[in-house]
Amino acid sequence: MKTSSNGKVFLVGAGPGAVDLITMRGAEILSRAQSVIYDHLVNPGLLRLAPASAELIYAGKRGGEHRDLGQREINLLLIERALKGINVVRLKGGDPFIFGRGGEEAEALVAAGIDFEVVPGITSAISVPAFAGIPLTHREYGSFVAFVTGHEDASEASVPWDDLAHAAKRGGTIV
Amino acid sequence: MKTSSNGKVFLVGAGPGAVDLITMRGAEILSRAQSVIYDHLVNPGLLRLAPASAELIYAGKRGGEHRDLGQREINLLLIERALKGINVVRLKGGDPFIFGRGGEEAEALVAAGIDFEVVPGITSAISVPAFAGIPLTHREYGSFVAFVTGHEDASEASVPWDDLAHAAKRGGTIV
Repeated sequence: MKTSSNGKVFLVGAGPGAVDLITMRGAEILSRAQSVIYDHLVNPGLLRLAPASAELIYAGKRGGEHRDLGQREINLLLIERALKGINVVRLKGGDPFIFGRGGEEAEALVAAGIDFEVVPGITSAISVPAFAGIPLTHREYGSFVAFVTGHEDASEASVPWDDLAHAAKRGGTIV
Repeated sequence: MKTSSNGKVFLVGAGPGAVDLITMRGAEILSRAQSVIYDHLVNPGLLRLAPASAELIYAGKRGGEHRDLGQREINLLLIERALKGINVVRLKGGDPFIFGRGGEEAEALVAAGIDFEVVPGITSAISVPAFAGIPLTHREYGSFVAFVTGHEDASEASVPWDDLAHAAKRGGTIV
């Protein structure tokens, strides 16, 4: 049962890599974190924004690395810490909900009755083309942009490449 | 001709609305701005991050508002300021390159030989669903997500809705 003594979980997007591309809100929340559970894609410099007393837990997720924490273990860590009254920052590369697994973590937190907040981050899908000077939706060239996950496996929904390619030929961008 | 005495233009994404959802880098650049040219979608609270001495120019863009500055006027303002040695922040709602017209501004700056930098921002397309607790790409439900512009007009590339809808039926999300 949820009580007021529970900690809160913050699902925070770290952005595309550079420390200063995290949001002001993400940085502020990190500066008050008691526990930080971070992914491989997160710039280690961001961990310095957390108090020296904060617990830092590496969750891995290099893609194919099986020594990393599993999603179920991560969900349990978040819930266990929050039930102890600890404020946890789950720091994920890019945005927590775009190809991160923030959706699964949010569902686990809802099921456990843990209060949580999502702080969006800049996805690398958007920022890498931007830095390279490539606008994804120039008005004359494209009316839509599709972000497609680079990790496709048999257990996941498959990518309808043919439909997307057909749509892109008629004026769009696939990343 | 480009000389070292020219100012620099920063195409900065303001994020989805809340002041603290701008990046740390965006906030830092704003704090040093000499001129800020901002869109309708930008939270006025962000303008307070600029020095009191900074020039603030409203560029409008409410969609259909014709009293606003035209894109050509905005491009010329950016170039004119930079040629005077002024550092200009072009502050746009969301991300400067996702359905903003950062692409056209960047092209104009390249053509004029003006140095510029793009600072990405969080698009409202991503962050609004995130705050509502709706993950756009849950691994079991979707393999892609398509952002489609809400402003379609005859002069722009048309949206291939039929292909996108067909792709979405096979496992994807359209925003």
